[in-house]
Amino acid sequence: MRNLKLTLQYDGTEFFGWQTQPGRRTVQEVCETAVFEITRERIRLNASGRTDSGVHALGQVANFHTPTKLRCEVLVKAINAKLPEDVRVRECVEVPQSFCANKDAVRKLYRYVISDSRTPSPILRKYSWQTKQPLNEAAMNQAASQLIGRHDFLSFETEGPNRLSSVRTITRLTVERRDQEYLWLEVEADGFLYNMVRAIAGTLFQVGRGYWRAGLMKEILASRDRGKAGPTAPPEGLFLVNVTYATN
Amino acid sequence: MRNLKLTLQYDGTEFFGWQTQPGRRTVQEVCETAVFEITRERIRLNASGRTDSGVHALGQVANFHTPTKLRCEVLVKAINAKLPEDVRVRECVEVPQSFCANKDAVRKLYRYVISDSRTPSPILRKYSWQTKQPLNEAAMNQAASQLIGRHDFLSFETEGPNRLSSVRTITRLTVERRDQEYLWLEVEADGFLYNMVRAIAGTLFQVGRGYWRAGLMKEILASRDRGKAGPTAPPEGLFLVNVTYATN
Repeated sequence: MRNLKLTLQYDGTEFFGWQTQPGRRTVQEVCETAVFEITRERIRLNASGRTDSGVHALGQVANFHTPTKLRCEVLVKAINAKLPEDVRVRECVEVPQSFCANKDAVRKLYRYVISDSRTPSPILRKYSWQTKQPLNEAAMNQAASQLIGRHDFLSFETEGPNRLSSVRTITRLTVERRDQEYLWLEVEADGFLYNMVRAIAGTLFQVGRGYWRAGLMKEILASRDRGKAGPTAPPEGLFLVNVTYATN
Repeated sequence: MRNLKLTLQYDGTEFFGWQTQPGRRTVQEVCETAVFEITRERIRLNASGRTDSGVHALGQVANFHTPTKLRCEVLVKAINAKLPEDVRVRECVEVPQSFCANKDAVRKLYRYVISDSRTPSPILRKYSWQTKQPLNEAAMNQAASQLIGRHDFLSFETEGPNRLSSVRTITRLTVERRDQEYLWLEVEADGFLYNMVRAIAGTLFQVGRGYWRAGLMKEILASRDRGKAGPTAPPEGLFLVNVTYATN
């Protein structure tokens, strides 16, 4: 058996997220089906992590074990020929048997795109959160900087498939204005809690629109209370940009 | 009667182009209907020019005459509230009675986006031409430079609603690689013939993929024969970026 690592892009708009669910169109299910149509073997795709309904990926990573002898370049073309047009394999490489896309992920980078134009772009309506509220990116950056480092992020975790520990290390968190009317929030961490990026985006939004002062972030962190942080920002603004591994 | 000038953005994917056609969903028709729902007056929207089925606009301009006394800012909000989500009014200003969005246009800027990645982005599949052919942008730029200036562009005009003269002046034509796998072709002229940008894009594509040498452009121009130029590139890569007027 070979262990293959895929890098995937998808437009999350028409998917009920990554994970297979009965009767729902998910990225995992369409990818596993495409591989089956090539290899006639039922495989199990193991992703770096789930993405929710409507969330996009520029560099999701997943691995699977397969007896196929097809070369990686051939597999990429063959799988893409079977996939629907809103998901694509960008790369396939063979990795050691022990490699696990989920457990071996060292860091992940997410981008959250907000438009604060009064007349938001119809072209980007499915690829940004269009708020119409003018946002102050300097205040958002000041707030963001207080989340960088190793903290207990329980205040930013939605109840759900929760992890044992809610301590994570954010290595980067920036808010940058681009093309005048877009804010790119980029956050890199060693792992993320359920809905954590969207809770951070919703909290920074409260600071950006002037409802909360930037200094409140420390108190929100310390409270370990989801109710103290801002709303969960909608999924269409969120992109999983890439996943970093120690090797490969 | 007031004469109002609208700046419009639209995602062309689900439209049969700008111009009203019986039984077809067009940008003109949905905009005229939205204005009617606000003012209860049937108006005629006069655009800078038609865009074809699938072509997008970041800054289409259109004007209309109306007896409404509503302020421009109020109209923008009201019309946007009636419009479907794939078209938006970005701006509304009152202009002199004589202003005509079509006849008074001094220059137009179009962008044509090509992806030459082997694994093109599923997210941009409706907003770029995904060719998979590796393209040489230096050769394309060399070819493009030969089209700049005042020429008879008959070789780049599709038979259709043709104009009396096919002489136009291209003031800018550049091909720039962005984010590694995208080529942005930007072309500005005092006017465009039917399908002219898409014919230029298709012709530069032949140069970029190495089928034709860059020097061939002069011969293609001189031939005044549409058959000598390249194919008409597909509509999804084309954006009307903006329209320039002497005033307003």
